[in-house]
Amino acid sequence: MSNDYRHLWKDLGLNLENHDALLNVLGKMYGDIFMSQKSRPAKTAYLDFVMSEVHGLRIKELVDGKKQGKKVIGTYCTFVPEEIVLAANGVMVGLCAGADFATEAVEKYLPRNLCALIKSTFGFKLGGVCPYLEASDMIVGENTCDGKKKAWEVFKGLVKNLYVMDMPQTKNEQAKTILRAEYRKFKTAIEKLTGNTITVEGLKKAIAVVNAKRTVIHRLSALRAADPAPISGLDSLLINQIFFYEDPVRFTGQINELCDELEARVRNKAGVAVPKTPRILVSGCPMAVPNWKIPSIIETSGAVIVGEESCVGERGTRNLVSDAGDTVDALVDNLVDRYLKIDCAIFTPNSERLDHIREMASRYKADGVILYGLQFCTPYSVEALGIEKELEKQGIPAIRIETDYSQEDVGQLKTRIQAFIERLQG
Amino acid sequence: MSNDYRHLWKDLGLNLENHDALLNVLGKMYGDIFMSQKSRPAKTAYLDFVMSEVHGLRIKELVDGKKQGKKVIGTYCTFVPEEIVLAANGVMVGLCAGADFATEAVEKYLPRNLCALIKSTFGFKLGGVCPYLEASDMIVGENTCDGKKKAWEVFKGLVKNLYVMDMPQTKNEQAKTILRAEYRKFKTAIEKLTGNTITVEGLKKAIAVVNAKRTVIHRLSALRAADPAPISGLDSLLINQIFFYEDPVRFTGQINELCDELEARVRNKAGVAVPKTPRILVSGCPMAVPNWKIPSIIETSGAVIVGEESCVGERGTRNLVSDAGDTVDALVDNLVDRYLKIDCAIFTPNSERLDHIREMASRYKADGVILYGLQFCTPYSVEALGIEKELEKQGIPAIRIETDYSQEDVGQLKTRIQAFIERLQG
Repeated sequence: MSNDYRHLWKDLGLNLENHDALLNVLGKMYGDIFMSQKSRPAKTAYLDFVMSEVHGLRIKELVDGKKQGKKVIGTYCTFVPEEIVLAANGVMVGLCAGADFATEAVEKYLPRNLCALIKSTFGFKLGGVCPYLEASDMIVGENTCDGKKKAWEVFKGLVKNLYVMDMPQTKNEQAKTILRAEYRKFKTAIEKLTGNTITVEGLKKAIAVVNAKRTVIHRLSALRAADPAPISGLDSLLINQIFFYEDPVRFTGQINELCDELEARVRNKAGVAVPKTPRILVSGCPMAVPNWKIPSIIETSGAVIVGEESCVGERGTRNLVSDAGDTVDALVDNLVDRYLKIDCAIFTPNSERLDHIREMASRYKADGVILYGLQFCTPYSVEALGIEKELEKQGIPAIRIETDYSQEDVGQLKTRIQAFIERLQG
Repeated sequence: MSNDYRHLWKDLGLNLENHDALLNVLGKMYGDIFMSQKSRPAKTAYLDFVMSEVHGLRIKELVDGKKQGKKVIGTYCTFVPEEIVLAANGVMVGLCAGADFATEAVEKYLPRNLCALIKSTFGFKLGGVCPYLEASDMIVGENTCDGKKKAWEVFKGLVKNLYVMDMPQTKNEQAKTILRAEYRKFKTAIEKLTGNTITVEGLKKAIAVVNAKRTVIHRLSALRAADPAPISGLDSLLINQIFFYEDPVRFTGQINELCDELEARVRNKAGVAVPKTPRILVSGCPMAVPNWKIPSIIETSGAVIVGEESCVGERGTRNLVSDAGDTVDALVDNLVDRYLKIDCAIFTPNSERLDHIREMASRYKADGVILYGLQFCTPYSVEALGIEKELEKQGIPAIRIETDYSQEDVGQLKTRIQAFIERLQG
């Protein structure tokens, strides 16, 4: 990344030495994992560009916007409605972190036995390496899992302007009431922060923008049903990751162009792997940049990933928001309806998730399902046992993989995943 | 235990072979840990009797009651209001389990990285060794932590008549609404199960019975403030454990008599340890029978425990329910007010807990605080870090201890706890 950004990073208060170290690792990882892929669609050049400028051009855009009065809202969860932020002329960026950083410092604030994603969130703050976090005028935490819920109490002391959104634990009528109250409260907080009143027209426009971004992901997902798969799981995951911080309109346009190319590939039976390559559905915990460990192992072991049942994937993007309604409250209710359909494991019961996994496996012609869990993520690890049993019972091969962000278990994971892929070929 | 009970256990569907093994271990543990204590109050004979008949006489009482139409409601949490059960002429018993059992079978249903308490709950069911569970006409789970919330989804398939109570995650007005709705729903379910309508009079009487049971614990706690301590922490913990399944009226009478004896002891400056023995407050996760590991290590290392900031302890017993009100709904609101004061780590924020720990340390003249956590219990383990720092900052020595139900770490724990006690003496 260009040296011109160093002033920008310094002004944001980053630790330049740590940040250089992170960028070096990130750059090398990206090169090793993404640039070594064969038969990538030409349009993945967009992804390469976005990633090369992930702490550069995009941050400059945010900072330039801030100078013109735009507010940046940093989030950690698919339950924070981007529509409300956009309707108040704000920018929403995902802050979840996918690499171990400053672990020793983190463990002064959090127990060791906590999921890597939360620890990484703290590490990126304590290490001073996340320009998105430092550029955020408001940081939104949410009471989803125990780990996050309790971590926000500590995080509050490390950042300025942490806003915590409560969440229901069920999906009954009461849950709807809770989420409705929280979304209305959030709307008020965003209006206060930005100084902009959210109007029916503005919210409808925002709904259209976010729906469009989701729709292009639906288009991409449908194209991946083809055999041979026209794009790798790694590149598709990256698209789902970029989804969280790229400008939404630009993202939609660029991914639509990529889909045009993929459509031609499907017509020409061109793909990233030979036909009949074992096809994997990955299901479970979210994967934040640069957590590419499992997909990279899978796709260098003779299989191709054809879908992600994940918050960073179809769980997060599958449903659209209705724009029917003549009041802001009615539109907020539409948001509640849409977001409460997300089948996150924090809900009880959450049996829709198994239905969705089966549906995805069938739609994308997956030969097997890898249930991916972050160590110490209780909601997903409890669900994984039952889902694995149920899938196997229905003739869909499944395997549970639990890991963290370290590289220590790569050899062992490779062995298990290769054995699973061999089973699919047999 | 008498052989006459074998028919009873068989009729309840226990696995007699497993159950014999459990009783043998339990009996030996109790002998080693409790009967070896010096200068026990004479009235602890009541505790010895209750424990010797824990799977005998008390179960016979429950079964005899069932024959006369009484219903038994088994629970796992201090948030389930016993008042409602008593008001419908039901019996409430605690089911939490404090020992590893049938671990291999458990791990077919639950991930390894789950707290010992939840795994033990499953183990006692899968091993067929808990007569309380098997005698329960309704089993009440609650959406407190992620582990329990998700475990109930699996437990539902292992027991009949599991009732799940939702819980709020905060303590705002909305939280009150949630708990109110849940308690009303619970009241209706209990009325349906028992066939008895809950009246104002009945509920007031039940409130009085449970308040009396709590009040005697308050009396006990206050007496433990004396130096020398008139009763051990182990016996006090056992009283708090028995609190959950003994007949409440008998319990109150017996513990009041014990307190009479302790009062005389305090007057005569008699105690279980010499004056100036280091005094410890234990704070954290609940300890279910027979989880006596940490208290036993502490009290055989030259210290005495003077308070338990725990669900099985003062967190669970400290506040009374007001009986002001002329309608059942008004009285249920009083229950909501009282139970929502419980400063469980599932709530966010939960800063009252730190206040309560400090208050207890001062009231019971503790020299130090041991923050006890079950491994993989995220809510308490996240809180423990901040609380440890805060207490130390205020000059109250504190140490975090994380463990499970195994005996493997006893040597290591002894070394750490002894070093902590030496620090208190220095």
